[in-house]
Amino acid sequence: MYIDHPASFTDYYELTMAQGYFKSGVHHRTASFDYFFRKVPFNGGYVVFAGLKELIDTIQHLKYSEGEIDYLIREGFSEDFISYLRTFQFKGTIYSVREGEIVFPNEPVLRVEGNLLETQLIETLLLNILNFQSLIATKASRIKYAAGDECTVLDFGLRRAQGLAGIHATRAAIIGGLDGTSNVYSAQRFSIPAGGTMAHSWIQTFEDELTAFRTYAEIYPDSTHLLVDTYNTLGSGVPNAITVARELRAKGHELKGIRLDSGDLAYLSKQARGILDEAGFANVKIAASNQLDERVITSLKIQQAPIDIYGVGTRLVTGDETPALDGVYKLGSISGKPTLKISENIEKITLPGNKKIFRYFNEDGTFYGDAILLKDETDIERFHHPTFPAKQSPVKDQRHEKILTKVIDKGNQTFEIPLVKEISEYKKQRFKLLQDEYKRFDNPHIYKVGISTRLLKTRDNLMNKLKM
Amino acid sequence: MYIDHPASFTDYYELTMAQGYFKSGVHHRTASFDYFFRKVPFNGGYVVFAGLKELIDTIQHLKYSEGEIDYLIREGFSEDFISYLRTFQFKGTIYSVREGEIVFPNEPVLRVEGNLLETQLIETLLLNILNFQSLIATKASRIKYAAGDECTVLDFGLRRAQGLAGIHATRAAIIGGLDGTSNVYSAQRFSIPAGGTMAHSWIQTFEDELTAFRTYAEIYPDSTHLLVDTYNTLGSGVPNAITVARELRAKGHELKGIRLDSGDLAYLSKQARGILDEAGFANVKIAASNQLDERVITSLKIQQAPIDIYGVGTRLVTGDETPALDGVYKLGSISGKPTLKISENIEKITLPGNKKIFRYFNEDGTFYGDAILLKDETDIERFHHPTFPAKQSPVKDQRHEKILTKVIDKGNQTFEIPLVKEISEYKKQRFKLLQDEYKRFDNPHIYKVGISTRLLKTRDNLMNKLKM
Repeated sequence: MYIDHPASFTDYYELTMAQGYFKSGVHHRTASFDYFFRKVPFNGGYVVFAGLKELIDTIQHLKYSEGEIDYLIREGFSEDFISYLRTFQFKGTIYSVREGEIVFPNEPVLRVEGNLLETQLIETLLLNILNFQSLIATKASRIKYAAGDECTVLDFGLRRAQGLAGIHATRAAIIGGLDGTSNVYSAQRFSIPAGGTMAHSWIQTFEDELTAFRTYAEIYPDSTHLLVDTYNTLGSGVPNAITVARELRAKGHELKGIRLDSGDLAYLSKQARGILDEAGFANVKIAASNQLDERVITSLKIQQAPIDIYGVGTRLVTGDETPALDGVYKLGSISGKPTLKISENIEKITLPGNKKIFRYFNEDGTFYGDAILLKDETDIERFHHPTFPAKQSPVKDQRHEKILTKVIDKGNQTFEIPLVKEISEYKKQRFKLLQDEYKRFDNPHIYKVGISTRLLKTRDNLMNKLKM
Repeated sequence: MYIDHPASFTDYYELTMAQGYFKSGVHHRTASFDYFFRKVPFNGGYVVFAGLKELIDTIQHLKYSEGEIDYLIREGFSEDFISYLRTFQFKGTIYSVREGEIVFPNEPVLRVEGNLLETQLIETLLLNILNFQSLIATKASRIKYAAGDECTVLDFGLRRAQGLAGIHATRAAIIGGLDGTSNVYSAQRFSIPAGGTMAHSWIQTFEDELTAFRTYAEIYPDSTHLLVDTYNTLGSGVPNAITVARELRAKGHELKGIRLDSGDLAYLSKQARGILDEAGFANVKIAASNQLDERVITSLKIQQAPIDIYGVGTRLVTGDETPALDGVYKLGSISGKPTLKISENIEKITLPGNKKIFRYFNEDGTFYGDAILLKDETDIERFHHPTFPAKQSPVKDQRHEKILTKVIDKGNQTFEIPLVKEISEYKKQRFKLLQDEYKRFDNPHIYKVGISTRLLKTRDNLMNKLKM
C-alpha cells in the first residue's frame, strides 16, 4: 500500500472541517470535487497523468486505526465524530483519465462524487499522490523525447530523490517513457527492469584501474560496463577498457559498454567512440551521466555526441526547475447545486458543476482540443476559451472521446489498473497523437482547453450572484 | 522504520559491486567512506544537517528478506553471495555531526568505517535519507530566519510534497526552525504540534459566507481562524469575520485569526489589520499563505505587512529553487591506505584518508571556520584553502570542538537520538553562533572550510602518483 496509515496522511484542516460538517449535520450532502492543475510544469506544453493506481489502492484501504483514533481523542475531537470515523469507509465514486494520458491545464482530469465528508477527507492524500507522479511522468517524457527512441534512458535518481519519493519517482519515470532504473526497490515492487555495474569506489578498491576493470570483467564477462573517468578518461580509462575488451573477446565475450560521468560529455564521447571503433569495438556502447536533463541531452544531440545510453538522476526524480505540479482539488457542486470560488486572483476562479471532458480529434487522428462540459450535456457545437469566451472553437460533428472513466463506483473499484509497462505503452501511443508543436521545450504551442456554452453561462451567472 | 525493505532501497550497482568484492575476496578489506556535499543549496551560506535518526534506525534493521533473496536469485546473483547476504548485518562504525548542526561544503559531516562490502551496500540509502532532510531543514531555516522569531511559521506542504517525501519533509522543517505543521501523519510520528481550520470548500458548502463562518465558530468557539478570500476579501470576508468575532465575544470567546490565501498579501493584510483594529479586534491574528518562501516573506516584511502567521507549502517541502542537496559518499581509504578519485572536474576530486573535523571559534563564541584533519592529528597551527593552499588560516591555540561523534560502534548504536523538538532547539542554539553574514540570501559570505597541512600533502602526493 502507499502508506501504512493513510487516514493520517492528511492536512489537519480536513479533520476539523469533517468534524464541522458532521456536527452541523451537512456531512451527508452530496458533493463533487475536481482535481486539476493550473500550470504546466517546466514551461512545457502537456502533462502525463500518473498516480491513479496508488490513489485507488489507498482510498479503498482508508481506515482509522486505534492509534489514529487515540490521537484524535488526545487532540480533543468529539466522541460522536470519532465514533463515526471508527467505521468510516470511502463509498464515493471516482471518474478519472487513465494513467499515461496526456492532459492539460484547468481540465478536471479526476472527479470525486460522494458525501461531503468522505470527498473532503481524501483531499490531501489525493493531491499528494497525483501531483508528484504526474510531475515526474511529465519530466521523464520530456527527457525521453530529447534522447529519442534510438537511445536508452535510465533512471539513476534514488540517491537524490526526495527521500521516500524515490519509490514512486521511478514508477512515474517508467510511465513517462524511461527504459529502466537503478532502483532495486521499485524494480521489485513494480516489475520494472533494473541494472547497474560499478561506482568509482570499485576502481579505487583495487591497486590500479586495469586490475579493477579486469576483476569486474572476470566476474561479469557478459554484462560489463566500465566506468572510465576515475583517474583520466582518455589517458587511462578508455585504453584500459580496450585492453579488457580484447581479453574478453579472446575468451569469447564482448565488453558491453563504458560510462562517462564527468568532463565534457560531447568531447569525451566523440573521442572515446573514435578510439573504440579504431580498436575494433564499434559494438561497445557509450553511457553518459552527470546532471543530465532534457536540455543538456538536446544540446549533446545537436553536437552529435555518440552517446547510446543516458543515465539521468537528480533532475529527473526531483522535477528540477519545477519541483511540484500545482494540482488542486476544488468543490464543483454541493447538494446537486453548482458552486465556485472567486478568490482575489482570476486564475484561481474555479469551474462550477459536475463536469466531464470531451477530447476532439483532427482528421489525421491527432488531438485537436479538449472541451469541459456539464455532465448531462451530450453534444456541443463549439467550445469557448474559459477567460476570453468570445474566442470559440467549432466542433460540431467532430470525432471525440470521453476521456474520464469511472474507476471507483460507490467505494468499489471498477477499473483494473494495468501494469506499469502497459501504462507506459499507453502513454507512448497517446503521445504519438500529440502534435510536435506541443512537445517543444521552449514556447510550446498552447493546447486548446475550452468550456461548453452551458458551463460558461452557469459560471457567469454564479459569479454575478456571488460577487459583491 | 524508514522503509519496509531497506536492503532493496538501493542502486543496483551496489549489489553488483558487493558481489564482485565478495567473489574477488576483497570484501573484508577495511574501508572508510565520507558523506559530504559540494554546493550549498539556494545559493545560501550554510546547511542544516538532518536525517541521522532515520539513517541509524534503518541501518540497524537492514536485513535481506525472503522476497528480496528471491529477487536476487531471479536476477542471477550467485548462491555463495546470496548465502552471505542471508545473514548480513551492518557491523561498521559511523561518526556523524549531530542533527541540527550547521555544516558547510566539502567537509565529511558523516563518516562510515567497516568492511568494504557493508560500507558500500548502505551508500544509496544513506544518501537518500541525508540529502533530502538536510535540504529541507536548510530551507526551513531560511524561511524562519526571514519571518523572524516574532512570527509563527507553519508547514502546509503535504499536498505538494513529492509523494511520501512529505513524511520527512515535515520532520526536517521542524528541525530547521518551523513552529508547526498541517501534516497529521508526521505530527503523530514525530510528536510535532499540528493544526488547521478550514479550506474554501467549507465556505462553499453553506448558503453564504457568513453562515459558513458562524457555523464554524459555533463548533470551535476557541480556535476559529476564518479564511476570508473565497468571494471578496475586503468586501465580504473581513466584514463577515468581524460580525462573527462580535458574536463570539458576546458569548465570552475570541476569534483567533483570519487567513489570506490570494491577492496582494501586503495590501490585504494592512487593510484587514486596519479594519480589525478599528472594530476592536487588535488581538485577531492575520495568517497568510500562497506560494510563500524566504524571498516573498522578506519582501512582505520590508513592506511592513502585518502578518503574524505564515503558512508555507510547496516551496518549503520541495526545496524549490534547488530541489536536491548534492551530497555524495566517497571512498577515503581502503585497507588502511588513503585513496582518492581524480575525475575530469576539479570540484569532483575527493579528499583521501580517515578524517575528522575541528570547528574553530572566534573570541565572541561565534564560528570561525572548520578544518578537516586526518583522524590521528591532534592539533594544528593552520589550515589551508583546499584548492588554493597558499591561502591559510592560522588557528594555533584557538578554541575548537570536534564536531563528529561516534553514533554507531561496530553495528551498535552509541548515541541516543534526541526528540525532534530537542534537535530543533539544538539547531537554534548553533544557528545563533553563525554570524549573520553567512545567513544572507544573496551573496552570503563564504564560511572557511580548510584542510590540515598533512591532509594536503597526503592528497597531493596521491595525485602525483595517480595522474598520468
